[in-house]
Amino acid sequence: MRTIDWVDGRISLIDQTRLPDTLATLEIDDIETLIDAIRRLAVRGAPALGVAGALGVALLGKRGGDVRADAARLRAARPTAVNLAWGVDRVLAKLDEGPDATLAEALLIMNEDIRRNRELAFRGAAWLTERIGHPVNVQTHCNAGGLACVEWGTALGIVRALGETDGLGHVYVDETRPLLQGARLTAWELAQQGIPHTVVVDSAGPSVIARGLADAVVVGADRIAANGDVVNKIGTYPLALAAARAGIPFVVAAPESTVDLATPDGEHVEIEIRDPAEIVGPGKTNALNFAFDVTPADLVTAIITDERIIHGKPLG
Amino acid sequence: MRTIDWVDGRISLIDQTRLPDTLATLEIDDIETLIDAIRRLAVRGAPALGVAGALGVALLGKRGGDVRADAARLRAARPTAVNLAWGVDRVLAKLDEGPDATLAEALLIMNEDIRRNRELAFRGAAWLTERIGHPVNVQTHCNAGGLACVEWGTALGIVRALGETDGLGHVYVDETRPLLQGARLTAWELAQQGIPHTVVVDSAGPSVIARGLADAVVVGADRIAANGDVVNKIGTYPLALAAARAGIPFVVAAPESTVDLATPDGEHVEIEIRDPAEIVGPGKTNALNFAFDVTPADLVTAIITDERIIHGKPLG
Repeated sequence: MRTIDWVDGRISLIDQTRLPDTLATLEIDDIETLIDAIRRLAVRGAPALGVAGALGVALLGKRGGDVRADAARLRAARPTAVNLAWGVDRVLAKLDEGPDATLAEALLIMNEDIRRNRELAFRGAAWLTERIGHPVNVQTHCNAGGLACVEWGTALGIVRALGETDGLGHVYVDETRPLLQGARLTAWELAQQGIPHTVVVDSAGPSVIARGLADAVVVGADRIAANGDVVNKIGTYPLALAAARAGIPFVVAAPESTVDLATPDGEHVEIEIRDPAEIVGPGKTNALNFAFDVTPADLVTAIITDERIIHGKPLG
Repeated sequence: MRTIDWVDGRISLIDQTRLPDTLATLEIDDIETLIDAIRRLAVRGAPALGVAGALGVALLGKRGGDVRADAARLRAARPTAVNLAWGVDRVLAKLDEGPDATLAEALLIMNEDIRRNRELAFRGAAWLTERIGHPVNVQTHCNAGGLACVEWGTALGIVRALGETDGLGHVYVDETRPLLQGARLTAWELAQQGIPHTVVVDSAGPSVIARGLADAVVVGADRIAANGDVVNKIGTYPLALAAARAGIPFVVAAPESTVDLATPDGEHVEIEIRDPAEIVGPGKTNALNFAFDVTPADLVTAIITDERIIHGKPLG
């Protein structure tokens, strides 16, 4: 089953806000509903957002109207992951060739996502196996799985590939506050695949590493700046600090579409600040809800893409 | 109002599981109820546990029976904070002098807690003010406030003292998963005192530091080993890593009763692992619930006690 797909002239996507209790799809044929789905994280994950942007423009191309204005709003639905803008822009470039050409480009992006993340996954698994040499125990954060892409995940794609090559030990999954993408989505995916895993609170991830329970940290990315800084879900940076201290690899798995050479470094990435209501619990107090953090390039051991393995900076 | 007190021959304590919605006290006159209150965190925080242990033995001394056997169970109700054992042992040493002597010793410990933490608080505030020189923005974790002690907190005691000396900027409070002692208790205390504060998810604490929003991290401790390793609520270690990277002070505030020279280092401290049900949310998956972590001594800038400021190791 694909996280996002084009079915009968509409976008069909798994409503991730309802997982793991209910596996249901949304059938979307208007741009407002798509933007809303993106904002409330019914579809999320950088690669999946790239495909959502691409299919969204295909939808607009089919309907006509002021496609470029609507596409601009779609492009801005969430600011941090570069893939959304990338998907929108790539399909918009075909707009003058007509709706069939825009749809073809969007479907190409969707199918490329599967192939490219599969390649990334086996490249990453081979790299980790060679580096670590025994079944690899992985610490991960948030969800960089099939649900963040079309079918094969990035970070969890590597985990899956390790599993298929008998190279996987145990997986430690951070809950990922405030919306629990780790406890809800990653744990669900791993359970579906029969992969042994344990959920810990986010703040325990660094202790899992310090105690030697994880041999590597493997996470996705929402944007990789030209200098190699990695922007990913809030909570990634502490794992990178802990991995550096413990001397284990901190590995970022992302397709080339996540590499943004136009952004010089992490400080130049707009970090989405979401509704405090996602955090504010019983305390009924003010909250500041950063959705992402910046991991400086020097803490990143390797960036594994569908085309290459990047060690150190710069990326161009 | 005291977090824990001796009233009419019984232990009276605020039931912290009901805060911030309801401020209610439990009146305890049997050891089973006290042990249960400790285990389910109705009373928590290392200094408060020391007083609970002390008053518990006073209660036992008054009732008679096999005091030493009951005291041993009380002492073991939670393993990580050394103060519980310290409070029990200190009052047990008076047992042969009769119930009046045991009660007097317990009340002395309770009153010392207020005085000692007040001294600690102003010492810490002066140290931070001298070191930082402008109103200090503080990042804290969990609750090391009045609710973790009798009246004056340790880490939040320093915050309160900074406030009283016009030396306080803003306070960033981690939610503190899984039981939200930050969002529930620390935010409540700060609101009561009119101190401006913001709650963030635990995994955002290191970003708050990296962004320069905090000038210092100030936390409590459950046990400080002889080599200076600090055991505190899970999530403390990532803040220490981030503070070291950012070059800001990482300050531990704890009374001398938290210093445990009998334990050589953090690896020798029993880290309580609590019920996975505290974590397991929608994912219905396995969880590992470490309640504490170890911050290595080299990441600690200063330990501020009621008697001294400790820089570096060893502590003896």
